[in-house]
Amino acid sequence: MAAEIVNPRSDSESRNGRTGQDDGAEPLDSFDPAFALHRGGKMAVQATVPIRDKDDLSLAYTPGVAKVCSAIAEQPDLVHDYTWKSQVVAVVTDGTAVLGLGDIGPEASLPVMEGKAILFKQFGGVDAVPIALNCTDVDEIVETVVRLAPSFGGVNLEDISAPRCFEIEKRLQERLDIPVFHDDQHGTAVVTLAALRNAARLSGRALGDLRAVISGAGAAGVAIARMLIEAGIGDVAVADRKGVVSRDREDLTPVKAELASFTNKAGLSGPLESALAGADVFIGVSGGTVPEPAVASMAEGAFVFAMANPDPEVHPEVAHKYAAVVATGRSDFPNQINNVLAFPGIFAGALQVRASRITEGMKLAAAEALASVVGDDLAADYVIPSPFDERVAPAVTAAVAAAARAEGVARR
Amino acid sequence: MAAEIVNPRSDSESRNGRTGQDDGAEPLDSFDPAFALHRGGKMAVQATVPIRDKDDLSLAYTPGVAKVCSAIAEQPDLVHDYTWKSQVVAVVTDGTAVLGLGDIGPEASLPVMEGKAILFKQFGGVDAVPIALNCTDVDEIVETVVRLAPSFGGVNLEDISAPRCFEIEKRLQERLDIPVFHDDQHGTAVVTLAALRNAARLSGRALGDLRAVISGAGAAGVAIARMLIEAGIGDVAVADRKGVVSRDREDLTPVKAELASFTNKAGLSGPLESALAGADVFIGVSGGTVPEPAVASMAEGAFVFAMANPDPEVHPEVAHKYAAVVATGRSDFPNQINNVLAFPGIFAGALQVRASRITEGMKLAAAEALASVVGDDLAADYVIPSPFDERVAPAVTAAVAAAARAEGVARR
Repeated sequence: MAAEIVNPRSDSESRNGRTGQDDGAEPLDSFDPAFALHRGGKMAVQATVPIRDKDDLSLAYTPGVAKVCSAIAEQPDLVHDYTWKSQVVAVVTDGTAVLGLGDIGPEASLPVMEGKAILFKQFGGVDAVPIALNCTDVDEIVETVVRLAPSFGGVNLEDISAPRCFEIEKRLQERLDIPVFHDDQHGTAVVTLAALRNAARLSGRALGDLRAVISGAGAAGVAIARMLIEAGIGDVAVADRKGVVSRDREDLTPVKAELASFTNKAGLSGPLESALAGADVFIGVSGGTVPEPAVASMAEGAFVFAMANPDPEVHPEVAHKYAAVVATGRSDFPNQINNVLAFPGIFAGALQVRASRITEGMKLAAAEALASVVGDDLAADYVIPSPFDERVAPAVTAAVAAAARAEGVARR
Repeated sequence: MAAEIVNPRSDSESRNGRTGQDDGAEPLDSFDPAFALHRGGKMAVQATVPIRDKDDLSLAYTPGVAKVCSAIAEQPDLVHDYTWKSQVVAVVTDGTAVLGLGDIGPEASLPVMEGKAILFKQFGGVDAVPIALNCTDVDEIVETVVRLAPSFGGVNLEDISAPRCFEIEKRLQERLDIPVFHDDQHGTAVVTLAALRNAARLSGRALGDLRAVISGAGAAGVAIARMLIEAGIGDVAVADRKGVVSRDREDLTPVKAELASFTNKAGLSGPLESALAGADVFIGVSGGTVPEPAVASMAEGAFVFAMANPDPEVHPEVAHKYAAVVATGRSDFPNQINNVLAFPGIFAGALQVRASRITEGMKLAAAEALASVVGDDLAADYVIPSPFDERVAPAVTAAVAAAARAEGVARR
């Protein structure tokens, strides 16, 4: 209902779910607050310069604009100074892995992409534009994004299914000199690492002493495994539906085979449940359910991050019986692992220094910064700050910008 | 200077033309008002829904957004109601024919595309996003735009060189069910026709009694010729650098050969100057110069629309010696033929009724509506309204929407 007031474009003439239905489908409940809020979309473009009269027009458009164009043609770097390029990110999807909904196509993914775009703005001050593509071929997606890249300062890949997402990101980053970031992978990994650092600090333990088990070998699971290893975790094993990803499995995709090569030092195999016996950390990004006895079999003082939405792999009430720290992906429990804690600041920092890419060092710095916001208030139900904590984005932004400079990818 | 106040992103740390120069190029005058205004770009994205707290977040993003996505997946038309798709236009260019600057590439074209985008918003309430592509191949441009079309309600092609622009527009409109409109062609044609209608009304003459000569056979010249014929002009001849486009010329591109087939009933040939002898209307979209004796040779009470920028083909002072009505493309003379009079309302009208395309009838209706705004104030120095006349966009919008319904291309 509130949206009817806030959104200037709400239009009582619009065909909506309650009228004009002629296909026999169940009428939408347009009084549902989610539908009311989404009516007319969630975003708009605005001019940041005045166009009040002829003089304004002749500066912002012809003839004044011509000298700015000419200057950029002569000194290409000036595009960053005199257009919105270096503050706008393309939120690119093909709609194949949208939230928990799966392959629903580009149009149906747009509400998520608009949501992402306004979170970029709200939390990072970064402009973002949804680009939902109606192609799913890796080559086609890569070519398309390369072609439209001149208009953007960065590319946030979103909700593209694994394993295509890995190759698309890799190839785009090779072809482009602007940051390319698949948030489902790295955003999730950054926030998970931040929470894990704080859980370890709370327990007086070092990351190197911990053995973690990740349920889910998709985009998030693979990225979290990589990042935990970068951060110095003792050991990490990843399980897919067929069990622990291990070198002796013969059914592995190339991505999982590579994963097997640098994870699972302990040489575990078999089902997730057996890998959890004695493990220090459970990280769920799978959507499955972990039986209570497996949770009970974990090491004393374990950390359970059950991040599936809307149904965590382990319900927090169950997890609390056995674990010292419990986190979920839900906003109605403490310790929400929410990507919005990372991506706005990561892009804001990268864009601020015109980084050519987002390096491992920048992601690790983001996780450190995010963890440090919690400070002395650290507690079992507070290992990660709220998205609405106003210290978060500035801390992440500054850390990422500094790391970009330190890693030599900053261009100013 | 004003922009430093208005633009929230102006950043004193930015490298600009006056500092950090290390390539020996002439330092930019960053105190030039055009550069000052353009610093940081001219546009931004804004959320149109609140994200103040956890509850807002859970409606605008997960989990609330999921039911909106699911609804669109089931009923694809709902994408128009619950996203910004049907109010956002992609302003697509390849940077090959930018203003009078020519082929300056995608990045250098961005200030124009941003300018266009904010004019869409300011004058038509239409959101628009610059998409500058780094490919110039017709197939590649068409494929790229088709792939990103799910995110947009319309495509405004801009500053793409002829003759590629004709084929790109045609093929895109065949492939897409949203309006595709090459403004350099049709926007210019609509405004020219509107001015011509009023010039004729002022002189008490019918379009069918007029013979027009167009200088320039590029995007604008071809489209104006087509539109004048649609509107019932007596005769129109188009001249390129080699003279009048006529059936007996053997050097014509396919587009010009087609042009020859439906223009120039009088069977003129030879240079532009000779075609002007006795002509009633001169329309310049060429950038060349017409010698004064040729202007003097036109019929009594002629109309001279010398629209090249910044230097009209005929200077207004010269034109006024011989012509009853004089128009230019410049804002510092009366009767400015300015595309901004047309494209915002044309897209606003098309989007309002979810038109699948912009038909000839819709363009003619736009020209009629634009002409009618002048009303009883019609005078030799007022045949076309000002872009800042607040009656313009609503009149064009309403006329275009009505014409779309009448022509059967409206979808609501």
